[in-house]
Amino acid sequence: MAENLKRGDGLPPAMTRLVKELSRLPGIGEKTASRLAFNLLNRPRDQVIALAESLLEMKERVGLCSECFALSDNPKCQICEDPARERDLICVVEGPADLMALERARSFGGLYHVLHGALSPLDGIGPDDIKMTELLTRVSPPATVREVIIATNATVEGEATALYIARALKPLGVKATRLARGLPAGGDLEYSDSATLASALTGRREL
Amino acid sequence: MAENLKRGDGLPPAMTRLVKELSRLPGIGEKTASRLAFNLLNRPRDQVIALAESLLEMKERVGLCSECFALSDNPKCQICEDPARERDLICVVEGPADLMALERARSFGGLYHVLHGALSPLDGIGPDDIKMTELLTRVSPPATVREVIIATNATVEGEATALYIARALKPLGVKATRLARGLPAGGDLEYSDSATLASALTGRREL
Repeated sequence: MAENLKRGDGLPPAMTRLVKELSRLPGIGEKTASRLAFNLLNRPRDQVIALAESLLEMKERVGLCSECFALSDNPKCQICEDPARERDLICVVEGPADLMALERARSFGGLYHVLHGALSPLDGIGPDDIKMTELLTRVSPPATVREVIIATNATVEGEATALYIARALKPLGVKATRLARGLPAGGDLEYSDSATLASALTGRREL
Repeated sequence: MAENLKRGDGLPPAMTRLVKELSRLPGIGEKTASRLAFNLLNRPRDQVIALAESLLEMKERVGLCSECFALSDNPKCQICEDPARERDLICVVEGPADLMALERARSFGGLYHVLHGALSPLDGIGPDDIKMTELLTRVSPPATVREVIIATNATVEGEATALYIARALKPLGVKATRLARGLPAGGDLEYSDSATLASALTGRREL
């Protein structure tokens, strides 16, 4: 009896469109998107407007710092502009999220360089696809950089990128260091993988 | 050395604001919100604008149908406006998501009534807090309603609401029915809970 009805999904088109847009986000399927859309529908008007405006503002204002390529809503980022930062110490990271993690750790007082990727020949990502030339230009004379800390990830790509950078820095006479590897804080020997334990042994320090 | 620096989170304020707004959403913590924000930052401009606009459009346009209280961007919803729908058969649901689920099942050709909640004395939700009076007005003379299918959830609150509606409909002489309970499609006896099995037994049908 109910076969010849015009069937939608029982939602007004404006909701269907919002569900579609939300489900483009990573890790958000159609079910979660509907749940979010219903939740937003029941929110005070101001909150939904605030979310929409912050999306537009982000897209409009956030670009890359001209010096270190961190995310910034000014030509130069807050860190590069901060006179209290050591300017001859540069920490190289793969992406903005890595920079955030290091800033949260509150133990680095130099500048950053964000590569926006890592070398990965299999995916066709070479030195020209990331901010590699920009890094070499930045540490070449007349700049005086004391040390470059290579803080790429401890993955195959991150290690390859670190090696590449270290080799490129050698002729420039700039000291290149790599983040230490070993047991994470709270790490349990029993549950550590062999690669971590091997690094922890190799990198052991005298007490 | 790095203690006396002005520390942010290493993000430009526009990103921080977006992360804050996104993390208000249900089931989205600060980490997921950052991941979403980075993803949105790397999206084409059009897509982010489309999302922001669909948020605003939803909030601006979506209201409730004046007849059945389903979500609608017109005074009356698509289902109430559809002349092919049986107008003397009303299915009562707790919320818009329940209506969607029934529409997806494609086996109901009548109209709906969305209560926007269920009776729950413990949470202080009584008949006046949901669209109960509106339901009774809708099925009272001069309206001629053949049957009201009570499709509230099979929870304590849903059952209480169903009973309340059935009692209120009796003096009006309107037939009230409840969705069948029993094994779900693909349901396995071995893994069914006792309440489901009890309903399946009570509601058994001759073949």
